[in-house]
Amino acid sequence: MVKNIIGKIDFAEFLRGKKATFMLSLSNTQTVNIAGLTQAGIPGKIHLTPTLDSEFLCTGELRSLGEIATTPSGVPTPALITRAVHLLKPYSNIELLDLGLEVSPKVDYFKTHTFGISPSKSIALDAKIDALDIFQKGLAFGQTYECQDDYIILGESVPSGTTTARATCEALDYDCKEFFSSSFKNSPTTIRDETVKNALYHVRSDDDIFAKLGRVSDNMQIFNAGFILGLNNKIKVVLAGGTQMASVLLIVNSILRTMGGEFDTSNLALCTTKWIKEDDKSDIKTLIELLDFKIDAFYVDFDFSLSTHPALKLYDEGEAKEGVGAGGALMYGLLNGLSKADITKQVESFLG
Amino acid sequence: MVKNIIGKIDFAEFLRGKKATFMLSLSNTQTVNIAGLTQAGIPGKIHLTPTLDSEFLCTGELRSLGEIATTPSGVPTPALITRAVHLLKPYSNIELLDLGLEVSPKVDYFKTHTFGISPSKSIALDAKIDALDIFQKGLAFGQTYECQDDYIILGESVPSGTTTARATCEALDYDCKEFFSSSFKNSPTTIRDETVKNALYHVRSDDDIFAKLGRVSDNMQIFNAGFILGLNNKIKVVLAGGTQMASVLLIVNSILRTMGGEFDTSNLALCTTKWIKEDDKSDIKTLIELLDFKIDAFYVDFDFSLSTHPALKLYDEGEAKEGVGAGGALMYGLLNGLSKADITKQVESFLG
Repeated sequence: MVKNIIGKIDFAEFLRGKKATFMLSLSNTQTVNIAGLTQAGIPGKIHLTPTLDSEFLCTGELRSLGEIATTPSGVPTPALITRAVHLLKPYSNIELLDLGLEVSPKVDYFKTHTFGISPSKSIALDAKIDALDIFQKGLAFGQTYECQDDYIILGESVPSGTTTARATCEALDYDCKEFFSSSFKNSPTTIRDETVKNALYHVRSDDDIFAKLGRVSDNMQIFNAGFILGLNNKIKVVLAGGTQMASVLLIVNSILRTMGGEFDTSNLALCTTKWIKEDDKSDIKTLIELLDFKIDAFYVDFDFSLSTHPALKLYDEGEAKEGVGAGGALMYGLLNGLSKADITKQVESFLG
Repeated sequence: MVKNIIGKIDFAEFLRGKKATFMLSLSNTQTVNIAGLTQAGIPGKIHLTPTLDSEFLCTGELRSLGEIATTPSGVPTPALITRAVHLLKPYSNIELLDLGLEVSPKVDYFKTHTFGISPSKSIALDAKIDALDIFQKGLAFGQTYECQDDYIILGESVPSGTTTARATCEALDYDCKEFFSSSFKNSPTTIRDETVKNALYHVRSDDDIFAKLGRVSDNMQIFNAGFILGLNNKIKVVLAGGTQMASVLLIVNSILRTMGGEFDTSNLALCTTKWIKEDDKSDIKTLIELLDFKIDAFYVDFDFSLSTHPALKLYDEGEAKEGVGAGGALMYGLLNGLSKADITKQVESFLG
């Protein structure tokens, strides 16, 4: 079942049986090199996570590494969920957005949009992103993008992205530091607080919004804020993610405040997992309520209660939670007739 | 699962969830009248097989005969597989290509493309095909054809087509006589050798490529070679067949060698059944490796191991193996979420 975090169910119900393009936005930030900040990948190779996630989603194979990306405690990537839905009820189309990857995904035929964007630096030292440029690239992409399907599911794979999301929203003066989730069950609070503190230290009092974003954010968030504004409500978009996608919306909100524009959000919604919705270390609902505009937000009533696989039970205990558009993928699956049992069985089949 | 015979999986994975036109190319050759050469149909009525296959695929009925086409040993036509997939996960569109049928399929609404092509004579006596004309008809059809879907699955039903395929490739000087499959588990080697020998006897030393094809090939192979070249990579095509479709590719290859042209094959692939891939009497992989261009070739990991029906178990023993695009149909089914159990059950339902 797809359920509301905020708003009404109609947006989601309208998408029942509709065709979706799954778009995966990918970027690397050197923020991952801060020890203990994220568990989204293989230690020492976390920068490969978005690359491997894309390869696995598209082809079922990990071409840039010989083994499936797991966290130190053995939590497998949420890409398994996104791929499982695709095998059972395929997205009509998968497209990749390379928003600054260290290693390009090795896939043929699947459209990979490139924008000449480089991985960003660590926010602890100033991310040094040309945020206006990235934003304008997103805006232009949204203005020209033509979707062949009924809607877009926009997911992301950005290791340490929840930390850059928190820094972003704090830099934009939202009172929100307690609201961001983490790939860990128990957020590494001290390391994260320290990282965000270091990030905010670089923000100057005369920085405009893009100058701030350039220091403390990541390419995915900045680009997608532009992308959403560029699409200008012409196609339905499900932001498939948790607090990182909420941060994208908060960037949009800040830009609208600054520029004083009107923005129709009737074709925009967010969908995340039950693990994010029920996470007591973060608060997606309150983050969304910080927006000046109204938006429907959903979560998918899916967990691994039907599984006894120890790696999957970790999700139910609060590890990993979201990523690679897992919440939006589950929504698509359930809206197209898949059951919790179907999806669970398919995910289990990947793990052997 | 769809697996590679040659190449990478990406082409197939890209087609996951995509919409397909199933195109069935049909022709008769009097070569079938050579006793013992083929078991693709009802003895004495084998010329009706492509007609009946089309009727069954489109309507579920056999209008030109009151009973389902079976081989003497009771192996049902692979059209059952192609139809089963269509019932469970419909192709967006089915079109028929009448490339010289003795009896036109009795179906309304389904587009049947006609080209004024007559059935061909026996290759043992010189097939007397105006091969340049048939090729040019295929070329023109490819140049003007507009596909409404994401790709074409191109199947065939041509009784005794594996023998004409072998004669074709031998006449074109490929060293390949051991590589062609047969509708029989045990190829009728002597009859077939004799037939091909008789066919090649008619080839003259000064025959150009079309003169050779006109004597020893069949309409389906010549037309489809033109069709593929005419499409010129503008739409993805899955050649749904075994060694007959490999022969189509070898004709294309010979024409390119003769004409010295460049040809982009990135939108072209072949997909066949596991029964062909594992057949120890033929060798599709080696046939494809004879090509000067690269092409991905796939097989579908489907068999009737979940069935106890004696007629279906014959497939697993090596009878029939392929035809009516069964391999491509299975690929389409599996890429759209059908399971082996789903398809097996549906095929069984036709047999009662």
